[in-house]
Amino acid sequence: MALIVQKYGGTSVGDAERIRAVARHVAETRARGNEVAVVVSAMGQFTDELIALADEVTPTRPAREMDMLLTAGERISMALVSMALGALDVGSASFTGSQAGIITDTTHMSAKILEMRPDRIREALALGLVPVVAGFQGVSTERDITTLGRGGSDVTAVALAHALGADVCEIYTDVTGVFSADPRVVPRARRLERVSFDEMLEMAATGGRVLMLRSVEFARRHGVPLHVRSSFTWEQGTWIVEEEPSMEEAIVSAITDDTSEAKITVGGVPDRPGVAATLFRALADAGINVDMIVQNVSAHNVTDISFTVAKTDLEPALAACTKVAEGIGATEVSSDDGIGRVSLVGAGMKSSPGVTALMFETLSAKGINIEMISTSSIRISCVVRAEKVADAVRSLHSAFGLDVP
Amino acid sequence: MALIVQKYGGTSVGDAERIRAVARHVAETRARGNEVAVVVSAMGQFTDELIALADEVTPTRPAREMDMLLTAGERISMALVSMALGALDVGSASFTGSQAGIITDTTHMSAKILEMRPDRIREALALGLVPVVAGFQGVSTERDITTLGRGGSDVTAVALAHALGADVCEIYTDVTGVFSADPRVVPRARRLERVSFDEMLEMAATGGRVLMLRSVEFARRHGVPLHVRSSFTWEQGTWIVEEEPSMEEAIVSAITDDTSEAKITVGGVPDRPGVAATLFRALADAGINVDMIVQNVSAHNVTDISFTVAKTDLEPALAACTKVAEGIGATEVSSDDGIGRVSLVGAGMKSSPGVTALMFETLSAKGINIEMISTSSIRISCVVRAEKVADAVRSLHSAFGLDVP
Repeated sequence: MALIVQKYGGTSVGDAERIRAVARHVAETRARGNEVAVVVSAMGQFTDELIALADEVTPTRPAREMDMLLTAGERISMALVSMALGALDVGSASFTGSQAGIITDTTHMSAKILEMRPDRIREALALGLVPVVAGFQGVSTERDITTLGRGGSDVTAVALAHALGADVCEIYTDVTGVFSADPRVVPRARRLERVSFDEMLEMAATGGRVLMLRSVEFARRHGVPLHVRSSFTWEQGTWIVEEEPSMEEAIVSAITDDTSEAKITVGGVPDRPGVAATLFRALADAGINVDMIVQNVSAHNVTDISFTVAKTDLEPALAACTKVAEGIGATEVSSDDGIGRVSLVGAGMKSSPGVTALMFETLSAKGINIEMISTSSIRISCVVRAEKVADAVRSLHSAFGLDVP
Repeated sequence: MALIVQKYGGTSVGDAERIRAVARHVAETRARGNEVAVVVSAMGQFTDELIALADEVTPTRPAREMDMLLTAGERISMALVSMALGALDVGSASFTGSQAGIITDTTHMSAKILEMRPDRIREALALGLVPVVAGFQGVSTERDITTLGRGGSDVTAVALAHALGADVCEIYTDVTGVFSADPRVVPRARRLERVSFDEMLEMAATGGRVLMLRSVEFARRHGVPLHVRSSFTWEQGTWIVEEEPSMEEAIVSAITDDTSEAKITVGGVPDRPGVAATLFRALADAGINVDMIVQNVSAHNVTDISFTVAKTDLEPALAACTKVAEGIGATEVSSDDGIGRVSLVGAGMKSSPGVTALMFETLSAKGINIEMISTSSIRISCVVRAEKVADAVRSLHSAFGLDVP
């Protein structure tokens, strides 16, 4: 008998019919001899509706009260899922994040889990019930309601799976798994049966939209096997697991793309120690996450520093740069929001020379200029013009033999 | 400086504009030098929408999960009210029933408050904040979420006012106070400035729709002055307070009416001890509240027992009666759902003979037949044909000098 944590996202519990379908699947999973604990998100667009309502009341979105407001969403879906299970004669009880013992820090709207004390969830399982737990939410050390930020329900599911010692954490969503490229861009993309945590992390970081970086990191750190599946087809999806010897055969697992970033260039900077530190400290203090960083070749002791930030952070990032520009002797701060990034991800890259060369040749043959390059041991990313991204992804997908026949 | 608990019902927080109006009123109340704690209901029809959603999932309405579901409603309105206060620079924090220390028994959907431990509310007030508390909900001794049943938000407000030692509990609603009769029936009905708890209890029990019996009982038991006001006009409403000497002048304060009940008659019953006990035990065991009871004059040691029940309870009540009819030797069980009740309520009645006579004369002059009579020290109720109720109320309202000039 396995213990399975099943997490259902917003589209999976989008209406009464979908909620009944979820309940049927939980009942079947139990009928096959497993114990099941369920984690749910808010229904469909309900969270967005609540945010719109808050914006009607005040434009400021005060964090503590936003958390109180938004946690109503999972409360509704978890009660309904529990009712639907009851209608199938599956004993069940719903639990808020607080009742499930999800203890967080006091950072409203993006709280971090400090401790899991799922005593009531264990008790419910011991009684033969299916506990239905609110995703995304917890209670702070100050006894206030908190939310875990974007992708928070996945984090709840992974943390709960770890705390309960579950055999697998199943993430149910509206796609059938993790693909070798975005199927909307590459119609011949393949569903991957297995992906290593390291690969999944690189994919999440470079534009893979199925799982958020944070829940994959948590799962890797604690060795929680993830299984990404569809709650519309219920077929086997993609397993995300520790790297296994057999995985080394695939050199490139997936091509990811991302056009959500913009590039900032700080030019004419003196090439001396401390300049980059001053610049990136200013950005960090403004709460801006910097992604790729490239420092161009120095000529006459002057250099350009380019980096990418989320487009939504472009304005404050430019302001932060402009503020320190004079102090560090920069002659120019410019930005470019017409960029896109295409990345190769594959655990086998580590031991396979020639991947970089083939990537550059492929892009060159398509007449696509590379503007920035960054690499890790299992990833190569190139920044190109945004309008060339789709073509780049398709060409690379073919060149690395990923197309389904 | 007074401490005021303000309770806002569903229509008072029905949309963003109304929520901002509530916040302005709270801010004004504070600006006049008062401390304020707020209790809110769910927005407008939101609770009904949640119930409809639950019915789509399963027809059974499991009590524990219904409570989890419905408590999402106040969570949304309290967070929004707190945000709206923040937008006016009034420091505020919202609290769930659980956080506010509202400890109940384990009867889901109609829990009773066992204990109030509003430590966090006191702390918030001490910090100069306006606590915004979820009405209608609490946490059980088993740590499950409970709701207090119909009129529960008023009960929350009164209990909180008592626990905090508040000077007054203001109940904001969509009418401007308590009237001498239903203004829809009697256009010349007057708003009452003051009503005693005893009168208000009789009015609530006989069809007054402004306050539920339960919150008035709680307020009377603990001596919490209530002030019923409109959140649309904000004018002074009706105070419900301990009886004062000055009140004795008004003989009749209000005429109430109620057409929500039906009459059951159990006929041909032997006039011996234990018969009524058997009958009403059977009804109590079926969970049916019996209201007026009249036993007719016995002839030849046979009697008729008539009583009223809510129309919604008529079917199970008839079933319960039929079940015991043979055992108690009754020859007939019949029902009549065409009745209505009109009641005179007034603290001054106690010391004023002639009220009953004037009531009967007034009804008789209008050709209205009286089918049942029941009295308390400050109330007289007559059952008449339902279609005669409005005419009866208007005639009595005039006869007892209640019409506004």
